[in-house]
Amino acid sequence: MNRDFTDVSMAVIRRLPKYHRYLKDLLDKEVYRISSRELSRLIGFTASQIRQDLNCFGGFGQQGYGYNVEELYKEIGNILGLNRVYSTVIVGAGNLGQAIANYPSFVKYGFELHGLFDVNPKLVGMKIRDINIYDVDELGTFVKENDIEIGIICSPKEVAQDITDTLCKANIKGIWNFAPIDLKVPKDIIVENVHVSESLFILSFLLNEKSKRD
Amino acid sequence: MNRDFTDVSMAVIRRLPKYHRYLKDLLDKEVYRISSRELSRLIGFTASQIRQDLNCFGGFGQQGYGYNVEELYKEIGNILGLNRVYSTVIVGAGNLGQAIANYPSFVKYGFELHGLFDVNPKLVGMKIRDINIYDVDELGTFVKENDIEIGIICSPKEVAQDITDTLCKANIKGIWNFAPIDLKVPKDIIVENVHVSESLFILSFLLNEKSKRD
Repeated sequence: MNRDFTDVSMAVIRRLPKYHRYLKDLLDKEVYRISSRELSRLIGFTASQIRQDLNCFGGFGQQGYGYNVEELYKEIGNILGLNRVYSTVIVGAGNLGQAIANYPSFVKYGFELHGLFDVNPKLVGMKIRDINIYDVDELGTFVKENDIEIGIICSPKEVAQDITDTLCKANIKGIWNFAPIDLKVPKDIIVENVHVSESLFILSFLLNEKSKRD
Repeated sequence: MNRDFTDVSMAVIRRLPKYHRYLKDLLDKEVYRISSRELSRLIGFTASQIRQDLNCFGGFGQQGYGYNVEELYKEIGNILGLNRVYSTVIVGAGNLGQAIANYPSFVKYGFELHGLFDVNPKLVGMKIRDINIYDVDELGTFVKENDIEIGIICSPKEVAQDITDTLCKANIKGIWNFAPIDLKVPKDIIVENVHVSESLFILSFLLNEKSKRD
């Protein structure tokens, strides 16, 4: 199957990783068949939402049978592009960079880490999971020579745009950005942000609202 | 001002941290006044979206003048509950826990870290930013005795629910969860998740879609 999903809304796409995670849990528990109602109870979306979401991709359920968990898990993985390998580098080898390098999903789903980069001479030359930490001066050349597709930015925000410029010049395809800044990139480069402080501020909002009502 | 914002949609609320971040950048650059059009160009929302969003909170702009950056920054901070201090603990003092403990926004915006907790005897007894790492067995007592409001879960997913149960029994108010699992909590406990692998899978989706079109 090589159709593209430009017609599917990003709201639906952004729910797919959650389906993927729950289906993996079901497989780990040796559950091979599930109704949209049971899936709904587990995952917290309505059964009708689930049917609608999955229909965007051709529909996987069978009336009176439900979903084949293994098939659905595999298909959603395919849609998410998890049926292939991605070459990656991490820029910023501090605690966050090391946490990402060791993150189980990262390793498990085909994200191959080829190198970490840092300015700190104490880190350069060390290894994480047998992968070298290089001087950030070598970043551009390394990315170009090794056809790296994804650059993961775990640096302080002050240097994140410079790193991005280096990555883009070296023909990176996508950037996974943890720095609290919106990066400027040429329009064919994909950027996906994890802005953790935004999530923290939503938590403080909710706590503060709750304390007003209590 | 002590009104609550239960009438404002979470979609609007979830955009506030981004406004907050851009307004902070403007203040750092000593820009004290901005039109919704200029703000729109910076932040990437339409000017009409910006006016609509800010109107939900009473509207801050003045016709022909624009927004007072400092006032708007302060008010959005107040709405987000950043005008007070939160007592927190981090459970899981590995790379991710340490990264969060050192995260600049975390320190800057009133999230006071009272302790880290881990099972690893090599970590227990150490300090991060002068804050102790304790044995996780002490978690419940510590949270209760110190009136901790926020528990931050940076543990492997296998133990995240047990940690959550301990936190809830010790009267935690909110949980900031980095483990890739949806936690079960009593309904008065607020949970905010950072599911980093969901973001990674969106990146792989977008890269994979792009490669089909190229």
